[in-house]
Amino acid sequence: MDNGISPAKKQKVANGSNNDADKIKSGYLKTQKDPENSVSLLFSLPEKVGALAQVLKIFESHQVNLHHIESRPSKQSSTEFEFFVSCDNKTGGLQEALDALKKIAKSFRLLSRKTGEYPADGTVPWFPKKICELDRFANQILSYGNELESDHPGFTDAVYRARRKELADIAFFYKHGQEIPRVKYTEDEISTWRTIYNELTKLYPTHACKQFNHVFPLLQDNCGYNPDNIPQLEDVSRFLQDCTGFRIRPVAGLLSSRDFLSGLAFRTFHSTQYIRHSSRPMYTPEPDVCHELLGHVPLFADPAFAQFSQEIGLASLGAPDEYIKKLATCYWFTVEFGMCKQENDLKAYGAGLLSSFGELQYCLTDASEKKTFDPAVTCDQEYPITSFQPIYFVADSFEKAKEKMREYAKTIPRPFSVRYNPYTQSVEVIENKNQIINLTHAIKGDLTLLEDALSKIGGI
Amino acid sequence: MDNGISPAKKQKVANGSNNDADKIKSGYLKTQKDPENSVSLLFSLPEKVGALAQVLKIFESHQVNLHHIESRPSKQSSTEFEFFVSCDNKTGGLQEALDALKKIAKSFRLLSRKTGEYPADGTVPWFPKKICELDRFANQILSYGNELESDHPGFTDAVYRARRKELADIAFFYKHGQEIPRVKYTEDEISTWRTIYNELTKLYPTHACKQFNHVFPLLQDNCGYNPDNIPQLEDVSRFLQDCTGFRIRPVAGLLSSRDFLSGLAFRTFHSTQYIRHSSRPMYTPEPDVCHELLGHVPLFADPAFAQFSQEIGLASLGAPDEYIKKLATCYWFTVEFGMCKQENDLKAYGAGLLSSFGELQYCLTDASEKKTFDPAVTCDQEYPITSFQPIYFVADSFEKAKEKMREYAKTIPRPFSVRYNPYTQSVEVIENKNQIINLTHAIKGDLTLLEDALSKIGGI
Amino acid sequence: MDNGISPAKKQKVANGSNNDADKIKSGYLKTQKDPENSVSLLFSLPEKVGALAQVLKIFESHQVNLHHIESRPSKQSSTEFEFFVSCDNKTGGLQEALDALKKIAKSFRLLSRKTGEYPADGTVPWFPKKICELDRFANQILSYGNELESDHPGFTDAVYRARRKELADIAFFYKHGQEIPRVKYTEDEISTWRTIYNELTKLYPTHACKQFNHVFPLLQDNCGYNPDNIPQLEDVSRFLQDCTGFRIRPVAGLLSSRDFLSGLAFRTFHSTQYIRHSSRPMYTPEPDVCHELLGHVPLFADPAFAQFSQEIGLASLGAPDEYIKKLATCYWFTVEFGMCKQENDLKAYGAGLLSSFGELQYCLTDASEKKTFDPAVTCDQEYPITSFQPIYFVADSFEKAKEKMREYAKTIPRPFSVRYNPYTQSVEVIENKNQIINLTHAIKGDLTLLEDALSKIGGI
Amino acid sequence: MDNGISPAKKQKVANGSNNDADKIKSGYLKTQKDPENSVSLLFSLPEKVGALAQVLKIFESHQVNLHHIESRPSKQSSTEFEFFVSCDNKTGGLQEALDALKKIAKSFRLLSRKTGEYPADGTVPWFPKKICELDRFANQILSYGNELESDHPGFTDAVYRARRKELADIAFFYKHGQEIPRVKYTEDEISTWRTIYNELTKLYPTHACKQFNHVFPLLQDNCGYNPDNIPQLEDVSRFLQDCTGFRIRPVAGLLSSRDFLSGLAFRTFHSTQYIRHSSRPMYTPEPDVCHELLGHVPLFADPAFAQFSQEIGLASLGAPDEYIKKLATCYWFTVEFGMCKQENDLKAYGAGLLSSFGELQYCLTDASEKKTFDPAVTCDQEYPITSFQPIYFVADSFEKAKEKMREYAKTIPRPFSVRYNPYTQSVEVIENKNQIINLTHAIKGDLTLLEDALSKIGGI
Repeated sequence: MDNGISPAKKQKVANGSNNDADKIKSGYLKTQKDPENSVSLLFSLPEKVGALAQVLKIFESHQVNLHHIESRPSKQSSTEFEFFVSCDNKTGGLQEALDALKKIAKSFRLLSRKTGEYPADGTVPWFPKKICELDRFANQILSYGNELESDHPGFTDAVYRARRKELADIAFFYKHGQEIPRVKYTEDEISTWRTIYNELTKLYPTHACKQFNHVFPLLQDNCGYNPDNIPQLEDVSRFLQDCTGFRIRPVAGLLSSRDFLSGLAFRTFHSTQYIRHSSRPMYTPEPDVCHELLGHVPLFADPAFAQFSQEIGLASLGAPDEYIKKLATCYWFTVEFGMCKQENDLKAYGAGLLSSFGELQYCLTDASEKKTFDPAVTCDQEYPITSFQPIYFVADSFEKAKEKMREYAKTIPRPFSVRYNPYTQSVEVIENKNQIINLTHAIKGDLTLLEDALSKIGGI
Repeated sequence: MDNGISPAKKQKVANGSNNDADKIKSGYLKTQKDPENSVSLLFSLPEKVGALAQVLKIFESHQVNLHHIESRPSKQSSTEFEFFVSCDNKTGGLQEALDALKKIAKSFRLLSRKTGEYPADGTVPWFPKKICELDRFANQILSYGNELESDHPGFTDAVYRARRKELADIAFFYKHGQEIPRVKYTEDEISTWRTIYNELTKLYPTHACKQFNHVFPLLQDNCGYNPDNIPQLEDVSRFLQDCTGFRIRPVAGLLSSRDFLSGLAFRTFHSTQYIRHSSRPMYTPEPDVCHELLGHVPLFADPAFAQFSQEIGLASLGAPDEYIKKLATCYWFTVEFGMCKQENDLKAYGAGLLSSFGELQYCLTDASEKKTFDPAVTCDQEYPITSFQPIYFVADSFEKAKEKMREYAKTIPRPFSVRYNPYTQSVEVIENKNQIINLTHAIKGDLTLLEDALSKIGGI
Repeated sequence: MDNGISPAKKQKVANGSNNDADKIKSGYLKTQKDPENSVSLLFSLPEKVGALAQVLKIFESHQVNLHHIESRPSKQSSTEFEFFVSCDNKTGGLQEALDALKKIAKSFRLLSRKTGEYPADGTVPWFPKKICELDRFANQILSYGNELESDHPGFTDAVYRARRKELADIAFFYKHGQEIPRVKYTEDEISTWRTIYNELTKLYPTHACKQFNHVFPLLQDNCGYNPDNIPQLEDVSRFLQDCTGFRIRPVAGLLSSRDFLSGLAFRTFHSTQYIRHSSRPMYTPEPDVCHELLGHVPLFADPAFAQFSQEIGLASLGAPDEYIKKLATCYWFTVEFGMCKQENDLKAYGAGLLSSFGELQYCLTDASEKKTFDPAVTCDQEYPITSFQPIYFVADSFEKAKEKMREYAKTIPRPFSVRYNPYTQSVEVIENKNQIINLTHAIKGDLTLLEDALSKIGGI
Repeated sequence: MDNGISPAKKQKVANGSNNDADKIKSGYLKTQKDPENSVSLLFSLPEKVGALAQVLKIFESHQVNLHHIESRPSKQSSTEFEFFVSCDNKTGGLQEALDALKKIAKSFRLLSRKTGEYPADGTVPWFPKKICELDRFANQILSYGNELESDHPGFTDAVYRARRKELADIAFFYKHGQEIPRVKYTEDEISTWRTIYNELTKLYPTHACKQFNHVFPLLQDNCGYNPDNIPQLEDVSRFLQDCTGFRIRPVAGLLSSRDFLSGLAFRTFHSTQYIRHSSRPMYTPEPDVCHELLGHVPLFADPAFAQFSQEIGLASLGAPDEYIKKLATCYWFTVEFGMCKQENDLKAYGAGLLSSFGELQYCLTDASEKKTFDPAVTCDQEYPITSFQPIYFVADSFEKAKEKMREYAKTIPRPFSVRYNPYTQSVEVIENKNQIINLTHAIKGDLTLLEDALSKIGGI
């Protein structure tokens, strides 16, 4: 029988060893799948009538094909416009066009990038500023869904590999805002799910944290969680959006830690859609839909946990590589393998535990060490990826964990702060006094609400 | 020539006289258009496995047909589930089922309502809690789009009335989340638009506030604003969502003030899609797409104005009828006819001014009185709806106006506070200590961000 | 019989007409009373060992006599020291010494000033930064206590004038931190007090605001308020310090508005100690101890009112002359003649009303106009000083009034903000980023306390 | 030669072993020194005229002698009065009087207590609420100043013991608000001071934290710090009040940890006034004036450190005995033996280090372990009191340490929060909704100030 090693393990190979695993298999992706062949720009110009025409003329005069162009009021200055441009990187004199733009632009950022293009010059790495920019990650996959290692249970199963490719393709072509295509799972796949579902649901009432157990019956009632059905990502994503605004995106393979964490900044979780090989239902060397649906999804319906997860994501935006590693380690010891104290009992809330029959039982025993979660300490803890964890970190509460993560984020060296704007689903980089004043206005607004609420609430 | 009386005037007939105009022409709507024939419920039950089954059984045993049912974690208590149920109000023993539910429910609200059903017993009027509940307003229209008064320029024009009905039907069947169907406007319609567009754009640089003039070129560049094209609501709505999260819904006719204002609480603006009659391009007795696109849309792209508008909406939720009237009056003197001071000059920002060639010029003259905007005073100001305004209220800034509106909202008698959750696009009613504690956590989180931003910003 | 014209009237002659009344009768004061003959300086130097010795040497080399010198850590920079120097303005080469100091100082301010010395060059007028600097006002009196106008009831009474001088001298030589000398009032003086006390205490239960009536019995029990005793300022000052930190200073005559208001910034109220002439117990052309003790004192024991009063004071520090006039007018219509709404009744809280038998009754009638207190409007309201007020301004609550005053203060043109530090009883001028960051820390600290308090309080 | 063991060591004997050392030598104190022989009460009554008379009558009818009585507006309820009563505990029927009071009182607390009287019933231990109540500690001394242990260097020196008693008596009879009597130190005493002063000032520039070195020259210039003069507590206390509001009280001997820490809540530091025995100038088994003046005083002039110290004090009020021990340990590892990181160097800020020639050098070496200051961990660290410390805790900044202390304080089990009111120099127990609302008002007021300051500050 399988030892129930966590399905999150393999993902962490990518997370844990940025240097090697981050190498994109670019030839493969480029020739076969890259749908765009484009470069993207973000820049701002002083407000004036005809600004767009001026920009268009520059591209035209250098014979660069535009795929898309849009302008918006600048979030940072009320006298500037912001431009997003996506253009062909083969045709015409792109470099000359960019040079011409830089001369008139107030700010200028080249967005199109690949993993290898992270700045070597000490500048801030690129990060998504709008939720739709997460679409860029689709062709940044470190390992495509059907590229199995030789020790993978499905390595020699051609049908399984074809199925993996089929589902990876769904994710590869997925764009933000679309419905996630529904998958008709086979009897064989459902049987695998059933085995896992039945084993784990026996343990949840005693081993999982109360937030998990609060949400799980709702998933049964609303999203088709039951032994005979593998829930659809689209249904789950809608449910989560109703609860906390978290949403799910299908992912075609392994993402780099940086890309994966930046999704969390937008309350977006990259989820696999395929299921492990049926030959070993209690084992998977990488995350699969059982791990996502049973391990991750329930907690993302909890407001405090959702916010905690987002804090990790926001902390990662533009952080140096070494801090991405630290944050990925924090993620590992919380979202994947976190434990918490509830009414003097230890409970599991990490997805790696909640989706692993063996480790979920093991973690509550004295066989492992328990430490208090403290990002400044946790971030440097080494961990094995092919066996049960020798150390777990215990959170007092998600609320407290979130606060600690925020304080920790302040120690990350980056020359700006970021704030998520849930109305526009975009990240605002706070760089000037006006933005700071707006932030104080927002705080004061909330205080006015607090005063009102306190005055109206009875019985204090 | 027309005197340019504001197209917002007619809407205010409905707004200003709730008692008469609020009477729904129910027979007409019911038989021809009501797509549902249903009643909706919102209630909560203590957390337990099988809660949904218990509820289903109650409906079943009383033979009530269910259209839709969903359960969610309660926002107010971590030990309860919330249920939304939509069911047939004709079949079976509905009343008996409701009585049975009330016995086991922790809280219980009957959602389905019509305008005439506002509570006469001093309880809080129903209001939408989720953005998708705005769909309910579609069959609460006070006057359907093709029902013209006898003095309407298009009253005798059968083609015009058919067109009006065609566009009203789009709105009537529109559901939240859908794309707004694009309309192919006729040459005749475009010609009307062109006349208005050309006249008004001459005045904007000198008469409109700077926020308007900042945004207008962006609408030209991104949303097809030009003399030869009537912009599509869908394009405009996407642009606004990018800027401030505001979005547009088509509306089939006049809404009651209560319904219209509650849309603003969700940063949703109900917009007409038809255009005025071509016989009198400078006049319209009711809002039309020219008024919406030229008057309203540009300002909703400004963050401070967007928030100000939302504050009016939030203040209206569950407010007594007399305060709805006061808030509608504040709306009238700001969003429709507001003026502001900018570098010692008066400028217009109200849509009624910005879409009216005549009044836009008139308002800057000394022919009218100018008072400082103060919701507590403004809310009781009488106003004419068929002539230029004798009095305008002047705001120092949208930021300041928003703050005043918030303070004013505290004086509205309602036994709770509301907070908008932009992640879930829902309104949270703050009724217990836990929610207040969560609010302080949120404020503290923003302060931590402020500390970080201050420490990083240079040159203070 | 006297009409009960308010005893605050005469003070306002000074307040209301800055230009004339502010002329100091300098010859008189200089020759007879000025105890110092000195000039004072405030400047900062970079932190270094021997900084004081360097300063001392400068004065020595220019043969300037020092009266006092102290150095402190700078509140604004952690790498500077602040120096306070008081020196002889007659001896030696003062100007040369000052020039030498300016060369090495990081900041430099000449403190010694007289009313006529307010800067004509657009710079910020001097204001006290430490509570002990209020001592400087003693020789800035506009009209000394025994200088009576010809229509004063005591003009021809030599004994009365001698008594007035005796009490004025107490105030003139009073220094911060000392006990206020006790006065043994004569039978004649007590008789005047008794008449007033007995008349007014009949009206208080029905005419005064609830805060006044809450405190008054405590003054009877703790400070000797009764018909047969004129309470001692020292006892009253201690009581107020216990309640709100407000304290009383004796004053020798009329202060300029600027000086008087700046006392409030330190929660210090300048009080007369003499009593009106016994020939007309119900009338006084200027404030006397009856006005102070019966009108002002009770309200200063209320926390919200104390803070409101301090806000006016803080707003005045460094404000331009025209805004001093506006603030003095706000003071007039609140602290002197304010009314408030309590459970749908109008009540008086202004000292001018509470110490005037006639006007306290008149103000509650319909003979006068009532307007809502709004500093931006109130500040420009004209008022008579020799008759009952035709207009009163009504506050919703002291809390609300304070908030409005704070918002109003933001509109006063001065290039800095001020914050009172009650630990050091000093005013901090906020001029750099570090101070702003410290302020956010303080706010966050209070929020942490709020979180704690909310979590512990029962029954919300 | 002496090893320079810290003079704070002996104090910690008292701090560290509450159970034994807390036994008051009551017979001695009672018969010889107790100036009062009284019991004190704090209670509140509903607001009504004649409340005081009612109370007086109760004492009179039971023939209890009153020493002092005062009434104040209640801080917690606007409809109650608070009474402070001090009365004879020998005469009359005290118990019967108390029983009668309890019947009519809204709240009731017996204040007079001795160390042995801490509640055994789970109720909250008494703590001072007004700064003047610190006077009560004078006769709660655990070991009077002249009671030396047999191994004390001055044990056999009768002159030294007489001097110790003389100075202890100053402290014993000292009352809040008085000037601290000046001591004329002998040549012998000054010589001891000189030895220590000269040795330590050599080390400060390289071993002490920057805040210490910023303040030290100011103490030299303003408070007579130099080799030939032992500074007077009164001068130092005034200087500190100017800088941070901290003040010094002379203390006659060892205080219990609870009493000592509660002084810090009021920014009051209990200081010895005697000097160690001249036979061993580099050694003292207990705190002396060298330890206080050189070790403690400079840091209390730093705003952030002052606030940090106050936080420990506030956390201690009403805390259970076990938490007093934890807080005393935090105090030990910060105020006494704290180290901090400054520009990548370790520096000392604890008074035990800064007043010990030997340990100040030792602590910067690798001979001891350094850990990050974290109250939750530090509070349980064991430590030796007769040798150099094997472990030191390092703070990032006083600001950060303060924040951590505040978060830690939230975990102390006590059923209320406390807030210091620096205006009234009193501690407010937050127990009801009104106080919470007032706190939000205060926060909002500070935010308004922050907005104003941000808008005015240049160059951000």
